[in-house]
Amino acid sequence: MQEIRLERSQYQCVISPYAAPVAHVRDGETAVFYTEDAFWGDLTSEDLDPKQLNTYSNPLVGPVYVEGAHPGDALKISILDITPTRDIAVSCIHREFGALQYNRRVKFLNDPLPLKVYLYHYKDGVYSHGNRLSFSPDPFIGTIATAPEIQAPSSNTPFEQGGNMDVPDVKPGNILYLPIQKEGAYLYLGDCHARQGQGEACGAALEIAARVTLKLEVVPGLTLRQPRIESPTELMCIGSARPMEDAARIACYELVQWMIELGWDAMDAYQAITMDSSLYVGNMVDPNYSLVAKVAKELAYRK
Amino acid sequence: MQEIRLERSQYQCVISPYAAPVAHVRDGETAVFYTEDAFWGDLTSEDLDPKQLNTYSNPLVGPVYVEGAHPGDALKISILDITPTRDIAVSCIHREFGALQYNRRVKFLNDPLPLKVYLYHYKDGVYSHGNRLSFSPDPFIGTIATAPEIQAPSSNTPFEQGGNMDVPDVKPGNILYLPIQKEGAYLYLGDCHARQGQGEACGAALEIAARVTLKLEVVPGLTLRQPRIESPTELMCIGSARPMEDAARIACYELVQWMIELGWDAMDAYQAITMDSSLYVGNMVDPNYSLVAKVAKELAYRK
Amino acid sequence: MQEIRLERSQYQCVISPYAAPVAHVRDGETAVFYTEDAFWGDLTSEDLDPKQLNTYSNPLVGPVYVEGAHPGDALKISILDITPTRDIAVSCIHREFGALQYNRRVKFLNDPLPLKVYLYHYKDGVYSHGNRLSFSPDPFIGTIATAPEIQAPSSNTPFEQGGNMDVPDVKPGNILYLPIQKEGAYLYLGDCHARQGQGEACGAALEIAARVTLKLEVVPGLTLRQPRIESPTELMCIGSARPMEDAARIACYELVQWMIELGWDAMDAYQAITMDSSLYVGNMVDPNYSLVAKVAKELAYRK
Amino acid sequence: MQEIRLERSQYQCVISPYAAPVAHVRDGETAVFYTEDAFWGDLTSEDLDPKQLNTYSNPLVGPVYVEGAHPGDALKISILDITPTRDIAVSCIHREFGALQYNRRVKFLNDPLPLKVYLYHYKDGVYSHGNRLSFSPDPFIGTIATAPEIQAPSSNTPFEQGGNMDVPDVKPGNILYLPIQKEGAYLYLGDCHARQGQGEACGAALEIAARVTLKLEVVPGLTLRQPRIESPTELMCIGSARPMEDAARIACYELVQWMIELGWDAMDAYQAITMDSSLYVGNMVDPNYSLVAKVAKELAYRK
Repeated sequence: MQEIRLERSQYQCVISPYAAPVAHVRDGETAVFYTEDAFWGDLTSEDLDPKQLNTYSNPLVGPVYVEGAHPGDALKISILDITPTRDIAVSCIHREFGALQYNRRVKFLNDPLPLKVYLYHYKDGVYSHGNRLSFSPDPFIGTIATAPEIQAPSSNTPFEQGGNMDVPDVKPGNILYLPIQKEGAYLYLGDCHARQGQGEACGAALEIAARVTLKLEVVPGLTLRQPRIESPTELMCIGSARPMEDAARIACYELVQWMIELGWDAMDAYQAITMDSSLYVGNMVDPNYSLVAKVAKELAYRK
Repeated sequence: MQEIRLERSQYQCVISPYAAPVAHVRDGETAVFYTEDAFWGDLTSEDLDPKQLNTYSNPLVGPVYVEGAHPGDALKISILDITPTRDIAVSCIHREFGALQYNRRVKFLNDPLPLKVYLYHYKDGVYSHGNRLSFSPDPFIGTIATAPEIQAPSSNTPFEQGGNMDVPDVKPGNILYLPIQKEGAYLYLGDCHARQGQGEACGAALEIAARVTLKLEVVPGLTLRQPRIESPTELMCIGSARPMEDAARIACYELVQWMIELGWDAMDAYQAITMDSSLYVGNMVDPNYSLVAKVAKELAYRK
Repeated sequence: MQEIRLERSQYQCVISPYAAPVAHVRDGETAVFYTEDAFWGDLTSEDLDPKQLNTYSNPLVGPVYVEGAHPGDALKISILDITPTRDIAVSCIHREFGALQYNRRVKFLNDPLPLKVYLYHYKDGVYSHGNRLSFSPDPFIGTIATAPEIQAPSSNTPFEQGGNMDVPDVKPGNILYLPIQKEGAYLYLGDCHARQGQGEACGAALEIAARVTLKLEVVPGLTLRQPRIESPTELMCIGSARPMEDAARIACYELVQWMIELGWDAMDAYQAITMDSSLYVGNMVDPNYSLVAKVAKELAYRK
Repeated sequence: MQEIRLERSQYQCVISPYAAPVAHVRDGETAVFYTEDAFWGDLTSEDLDPKQLNTYSNPLVGPVYVEGAHPGDALKISILDITPTRDIAVSCIHREFGALQYNRRVKFLNDPLPLKVYLYHYKDGVYSHGNRLSFSPDPFIGTIATAPEIQAPSSNTPFEQGGNMDVPDVKPGNILYLPIQKEGAYLYLGDCHARQGQGEACGAALEIAARVTLKLEVVPGLTLRQPRIESPTELMCIGSARPMEDAARIACYELVQWMIELGWDAMDAYQAITMDSSLYVGNMVDPNYSLVAKVAKELAYRK
């Protein structure tokens, strides 16, 4: 099984079609990716300031060239396993970032919140920072994308080919489908979280370095506009946009389209998701908000 | 047990402090409310147009005067039971309303969607409209509010004292807390749904008339800014605003405030909801969007 | 000429269809209205806190019953004169209100800005607070509305019948058209500003008490969805909504509709405003944002 | 005077730090740039469909390497002249783009508007398409940016280093200041408009090919977060973001910061722009909305 492990200097903080592939995988191959945490593994003490450590966060492994992947196909990513590679996780309240304070896009004249770093230690099945702040792991991939054809978005941004969606359903047992715009797909991933609530309120989850095992397959001719997720029991669509209602509409619109592909009449599908679907906030802190609409397969596959 | 059942002419389509109470209940009393569906019970055929039938939708029972309720207190509403009073439910795709088409607030020059009414029949434990569109009941109250001190919002609007939140967790087994701004609380309710997905995509759920049993208690001195919900295992805060991120922020902010009341440090509470909370869309179709942030009591009550 | 001057206890802080008219005017009559400033005239020292003084701001004169005004007509309001009735104007940076700090709708955990009250004195044709902060008057009506049929919005809110739009073009020399939903129109006004920039950034302009002279005429059968303004050279439509793009779309959509009424093809009107219109922010601080789209009459009336 | 004129194959539809410079200019040099229109000059008949013609729109000239430009400096761009190079201009109503119809970010199930292309001919000082649609020129640069350090945004996107702002004040007689993030600045420009209203409602202005004359100077140590414009009489700040209120806040915040640089107290500057500034919508159709806050130099430079 191919293992893809980069030198520190090789990580990318953009999801770029212009970089040279760091590895090639075959269609159908299972590969292992060693990812760094969002802070480059440098936030090792609660006295450090992440802004002093690195200019860019969310270093990614990639681009990985998937053989046989053509523009207009989809990349089917079966998430087999995520294993943390250290026994700590790190989070922090940033000075000018997060849902409950002003930030780069919501500009206010108030004083910032004070920086506060949280180091969590893993022991006996939980990540803990004191008694109250202890959480069992439920790991997922925060950032995963194929490259756009000509743009190069930041590794902090969720967009139409994936990116920093921070959606907890991108986790082992589930399958992620990403649109392909570039020959070879150019897959990037990183920013794993040991656990995160919906919304990722303060903007930093339980950030971990991880060993990620993925099976990569090309689905020829499946042309997607947005990422999709399939769990054993559910179909999900992700919308990433601003304002948040634009993201919610995209997620719902794409779910209706998926049901139309399964044979539904458009208005009936619109009724169905009105009565029996979930719609949650993946992230409310990134340059785009990511929302997830989901419906049970039992309903979607009804005849 | 007091039963509150109105004449058709008595329903209200505003949540007004100016109307005369239709009933009085004592602090601690359990009462039964007979509510009409969102379409006044008039949408009895798929050939009818709801806009032709009534000028205003969501007729409410109220105001109900709760004795001992003073401004600055909270109204604790234990939802004991919701029983549909007919064997049909009704939904519809409106011409200019809903998440996936232009509407009164999102004005476009495109042609409207065609009107389509869906009558669902209840039999053998499911509401059905053909084979695909069949749903088991999970009833809740779509619209419930206390009156503002001086304003009178539409029964279609969710706001700081509740209103048309369309939040599926306002259901039997849970407790809703509403702010009180007016002597006697002036409770209004109606617009019950036999079932609804998160977001209420098309804008009309499985709309039903119902018999609603509530226990009403005053919590003296509990001054709330927004509605709260308590389930057997969870604490929830609702934010209703536009754009949707404003609603999401309000819900998260209020959840942090609730945890501060329980003894948490503000930054630790912010961390806690970052790692282990839910954040879902109640409605994405009403004059304000309603989002729900929730956290497990097990976490919130930790010492 | 009828003069409408209220006792302090008679002012309204809601735009309500439920209040008793304070005066009646005939269709075509010119009347004079004495309005109080947004702070009830109480903010007479820079050491006072407006939140301590009054629960509600923006006290209004009204409702004024306009004879012959029926639902479905428009109220044509020719603004003839606005004369300040004191030689001071007042503004303030609120603790939790304004465009550049968190507020009731944008909830953050940051510390508030400190309260700062600014008293301006009028002399030699300018309102001054020191040398830098001196401004020549360009007075307009901040809040003016007809009552909704059944709702009662706050005097702080702009909505479909007008309200707290804070649009500087509601000024002498211009004509405001408001939709009528209630027999008698139920006109309310107040909150005059000696001057205000576009956006009303901090949320309080040069707030003044004023003597306002209006000519009121009913336009039978002119059914409007939103307020319109006519200046000697321009046509304007106002959209009030959230998020701000919803307000911008409403303003542009209504301007296209106005041009269609003047004989334009819809797509040509859409082209015309693309090439030659203005679109400015009236307020970015109130419960709804108000945007103004305008086009030259020379263009709109072309054949 | 250096003239920069590209082959068709050399145009860029991303603002990329990864492309090879097409020209070098000295600090202080005046240069001439020949730009193509947003449709590559291919939309030469009203029967053509722009989506069939080219995958990407807004082809740009660049990157131009400015000698002596370092990250942390500003690029001062004096716009000396814009001369159209053809006697036609082109606009169109797109099927799924523009302010008054659904589009890639506002996803609805309605039918699209029909495509309609408008060719305008220039004669006797006006661009005309029939009698009603005739407009005098007031040309400006729709898209102009320096490259980000590592990202590569689309030429359709406005962002922190400029881009597709579609702000009519980027015109002859004014000076544009852009942040520099990359050695050599990497200037790109194109998408000139013969005229455009505020908001660019339908999403395509009077699109022209042009000969653009710019004087380029480096301002060492002037570190900007956003573009600024200086006219002979005014200072302006541009905010590009979504939702629109985020863009408005950025524009106002940056204007306050500029006034602080000029010696103002922050709260006094906040007061000043409240009373006497403009705030207009540049574009309401691009991936980010661009708003412009402006204040008179006479006010800003007061002591």
